[in-house]
Amino acid sequence: MPTYKAPVADVMFLLNDVFHIERYNNLPGFADATPDVLEAVLGEAAKFCEDVLTPLNRTGDKEGCKRDGDGSVTTPRGFKEAYKQLIEGGWIGASAPVEFGGQGLPMALTQSISEFLCSSNMAFAMYPGLTQGAAAAIFFHGSPEQKELYLPKLVAGQWTGTMNLTEPQCGTDLGLVRTRASKQDDGSYKITGTKIFISAGEHDLAENIVHLVLARIDGAPEGTKGISLFIVPKFLPDKNGKPGARNAVACGSIEEKMGIHANSTCVMNYDGATGWLVGEANRGLNAMFVMMNEARLGVGMQGLALSEVAYQNAANYAKERLAGRALTGAKFKDRPADPIIVHPDVRRMLMTLRAFNEAARALTLWTALRSDVAHRSGDAKERQAADDHMGLMTPVIKGVLTDQGFANTVMAQQVFGGHGYIAEHGMEQFVRDARIAMIYEGANGIQALDLVGRKLPRDGGRALQAFFAEVSSYIKEHGADAELAPYVKPLAQALGELQQATMWFMQNALSNPENAGAGSTDYMHLLGLVALGYMWCLIAEAAKANVASGNGASDRMAAKLATGRFFAERMLPGTSLHLARIKAGAASTMALPIEAF
Amino acid sequence: MPTYKAPVADVMFLLNDVFHIERYNNLPGFADATPDVLEAVLGEAAKFCEDVLTPLNRTGDKEGCKRDGDGSVTTPRGFKEAYKQLIEGGWIGASAPVEFGGQGLPMALTQSISEFLCSSNMAFAMYPGLTQGAAAAIFFHGSPEQKELYLPKLVAGQWTGTMNLTEPQCGTDLGLVRTRASKQDDGSYKITGTKIFISAGEHDLAENIVHLVLARIDGAPEGTKGISLFIVPKFLPDKNGKPGARNAVACGSIEEKMGIHANSTCVMNYDGATGWLVGEANRGLNAMFVMMNEARLGVGMQGLALSEVAYQNAANYAKERLAGRALTGAKFKDRPADPIIVHPDVRRMLMTLRAFNEAARALTLWTALRSDVAHRSGDAKERQAADDHMGLMTPVIKGVLTDQGFANTVMAQQVFGGHGYIAEHGMEQFVRDARIAMIYEGANGIQALDLVGRKLPRDGGRALQAFFAEVSSYIKEHGADAELAPYVKPLAQALGELQQATMWFMQNALSNPENAGAGSTDYMHLLGLVALGYMWCLIAEAAKANVASGNGASDRMAAKLATGRFFAERMLPGTSLHLARIKAGAASTMALPIEAF
Repeated sequence: MPTYKAPVADVMFLLNDVFHIERYNNLPGFADATPDVLEAVLGEAAKFCEDVLTPLNRTGDKEGCKRDGDGSVTTPRGFKEAYKQLIEGGWIGASAPVEFGGQGLPMALTQSISEFLCSSNMAFAMYPGLTQGAAAAIFFHGSPEQKELYLPKLVAGQWTGTMNLTEPQCGTDLGLVRTRASKQDDGSYKITGTKIFISAGEHDLAENIVHLVLARIDGAPEGTKGISLFIVPKFLPDKNGKPGARNAVACGSIEEKMGIHANSTCVMNYDGATGWLVGEANRGLNAMFVMMNEARLGVGMQGLALSEVAYQNAANYAKERLAGRALTGAKFKDRPADPIIVHPDVRRMLMTLRAFNEAARALTLWTALRSDVAHRSGDAKERQAADDHMGLMTPVIKGVLTDQGFANTVMAQQVFGGHGYIAEHGMEQFVRDARIAMIYEGANGIQALDLVGRKLPRDGGRALQAFFAEVSSYIKEHGADAELAPYVKPLAQALGELQQATMWFMQNALSNPENAGAGSTDYMHLLGLVALGYMWCLIAEAAKANVASGNGASDRMAAKLATGRFFAERMLPGTSLHLARIKAGAASTMALPIEAF
Repeated sequence: MPTYKAPVADVMFLLNDVFHIERYNNLPGFADATPDVLEAVLGEAAKFCEDVLTPLNRTGDKEGCKRDGDGSVTTPRGFKEAYKQLIEGGWIGASAPVEFGGQGLPMALTQSISEFLCSSNMAFAMYPGLTQGAAAAIFFHGSPEQKELYLPKLVAGQWTGTMNLTEPQCGTDLGLVRTRASKQDDGSYKITGTKIFISAGEHDLAENIVHLVLARIDGAPEGTKGISLFIVPKFLPDKNGKPGARNAVACGSIEEKMGIHANSTCVMNYDGATGWLVGEANRGLNAMFVMMNEARLGVGMQGLALSEVAYQNAANYAKERLAGRALTGAKFKDRPADPIIVHPDVRRMLMTLRAFNEAARALTLWTALRSDVAHRSGDAKERQAADDHMGLMTPVIKGVLTDQGFANTVMAQQVFGGHGYIAEHGMEQFVRDARIAMIYEGANGIQALDLVGRKLPRDGGRALQAFFAEVSSYIKEHGADAELAPYVKPLAQALGELQQATMWFMQNALSNPENAGAGSTDYMHLLGLVALGYMWCLIAEAAKANVASGNGASDRMAAKLATGRFFAERMLPGTSLHLARIKAGAASTMALPIEAF
């Protein structure tokens, strides 16, 4: 049975020592979020995740969700009680606006709680995760009445939310959506169609479910410009805002899938269900994107979360399992063999996970702080810069953290040898659960295309230039620091390669856009490596300062400095390979005629 | 439901045009194996795999194997009938010696049949696969009586075989084996102990199961030098060699695992079971290694096989699924969207699989032909050279083909988007099944250690030098050929990096063996890329010759030339990253104290 210990100390180190959260105290909600408050809240969340959710992860996977004959869905044993505790803890609305019942705390806090939830039980964490996304869409695009009616319930977790985009014939290409919406005399719409892959589409955790549904209003234009967003609650709210009559939406079946079995992934049938337009007609994709961007950051976090819990279990196993002797001579002569952690190839795997996890956590927190600036700052310029950062980093966090997060669960499973393939150790579940994160909320190839095709050129490349400027000036400022050289010098090399790749796109993608398409995934990973390498510089700098000042546990700081070196020597050089692939262009990739496949 | 079409034409191209199988006609069994015969046999095997085994793959996964109260195991519906067809086809013994009922055909043929079997139904293919391994161990180490008794049954598939190495406390480190063997007055042994992860340990396909079991004879030395190999049949053969009394060995439970559900992976309890020593006492590992090497090549083939079937299904899906429009303008204006195969990032994935599969298939056939030379040639020097090649390539084929094969199933699943995560499309099963190949028969880290620690230094590096000499002389010979330059030049660069890595080990591993350990996995993949790059040169050369002479379908040959360019431009450059990691040495990998993990 896997175990989990939430990395509270590491989060606090990042918030305090690396990102100096006190510098954000001018933002609403931050002044109250003193280090003590943050640590206390994280500590409570950690306890809940470790004690309540972790033990439900394996059993939830095994049991799965069950659809009964009447279309109702039962979640695995223990989920209802755990959900009750979750909403009592107020975790869902920790960063939500106070006016709708939230606590207004920094988004960085919510992101860390979300990491803990996903590490301990990803399938469970999806229920509140989708609720947060639905709340965001209504917050930014709903009418005042819709906000008043739905937000307090969603923020409290009393009702949960879903996203209904995919249909059998369309996923990525939402222009192909067929679900119809017919306007009624009272201003509502009748929604008819079938949606698939609807996470948390039906369950027994909450008294109501608020479906956000993409549909095409009768007579709307074809393609993406004819798509609107609707609120379709499972139970129609009555005059007092309580769940009233059952709406004509039902779970037709539960998808049989590779993992996240404890999350009910439903086929949802809308049979003239009553819905209300959110935002403007035919501008549904616009509204949905708020939800999607929120969700994409959350999914990136899932990649990190599973990599973290997989790492912890692999490290524990490697310290216990005995096999062979260290290459430099027996380390534990009193035992029949050494623990496998003495073997360099096992270390290589553990260090790869560790070096990724710590930097990826930094990247998510850095971006969460920017998200707070984007939403809360009084300075328009600051807001814009933060928003640019979010736009640039959202596909990177989603794509890179889930690709690498999945690969890391596979690596952690490998540490277990044959035992990793057996269900009882739980390692294979991490692999199966992590796999979906590379697919949903836009498959990673779509993230790469979003990055290269939309985010790079937007506003004359302003977001990327700002990122280049920040990293360059860091390199310039610290280039002469001999102690930081093992981190800064490789970053300078990696940044140079990213800039070369960018230049190559500028010179070659205009004449043939397939040159950008064929290099997009490599570019996303190249940018991700540079961002993670930059995080390692910041971490190393803070660790060094802590060692110098006697702050923090010096062995923990020494471990960070060594782990950062591993990243710089072993992982960051991947940038060269990505650059080589990008420069190969599209010719050989596109050479074959379709019928040759 | 996934489909499968066995790549008979590609195998024939490799055997005839790339490897010129007619040059081996001096070997016993080859003269009869004319191209027509080979094609006919492969065609029959293909039909069986496509029509009988492919449809049983999904159902077998879903149903799994069931252990009944009496310890007997029932395989999924259809498996018994399919197995009957398999043995009627004589596929198991196609390359086995004629004196024991085999057909004596080239090993290259058996390898290709094995690829088809694994592509269509890996869990099923393991039953005959293990039988072939057991037969090999008895052939090389059994007494004349043991051979006479067991080989005809195993070669015919009338009885099946297993390998019993792993115990709860030991996998890789077989020195920790605890299973005991007590000599009886009649020369037999009583075997007592528990073995885990025993593939095909108990089932209902064959009338008897021949377990090959590692155990420690009472009073034997500790560690690996006290391990012996035993034959322990499920039913003790009677005087006529028919299954007689039930032996005291039983399946205690079936492991609940990630994939290959249709293969019964058993906990086997030996409770004073009767067994007979194979080969010399205390030399069991030696005898077992014959079986293991055979098995390792077979497992490497599983990696290729799953990559191939995953590729085929991903390519079909990409041609059918509609989403978006080509970056260069709509390609199918009559449809609501273009098929996703128009998108460069989808092509990137398909081409990666394809470029790997074709070269990996070449590598397995090249090595299978060497295996035939090693076992059948009358020339001792030729045999030794072939044996060197086998020793060097076995860990590479096992490690690289399964690592990349697994990664490829993940990539093929990605092409399906959300549908890849749903069981009914079968893509997630390929991922789950492929995962075990990186683990069993020696986890891939062990393959890397075997390569770097044993195979490289053996006989003064003779095997590696011979490989370098062959590839170098090819490069020299074809360096001036402008048409081959896109394949040969990158290979020259890659070979140079492999040689640098080798030199680096020579200079740095003696002083600190951890420098070799920390770079071993990268070295294995570096050597694998060079070997695959060399295969692409041979393929390109043959394709070019075919185009020039008007032989073969020219569009197929043109596709090969393009695919090889993709490999050279996009995949082969991975060698530089591996070299950089190797040169980083062990310092940062080993820097952390154990308690820091």
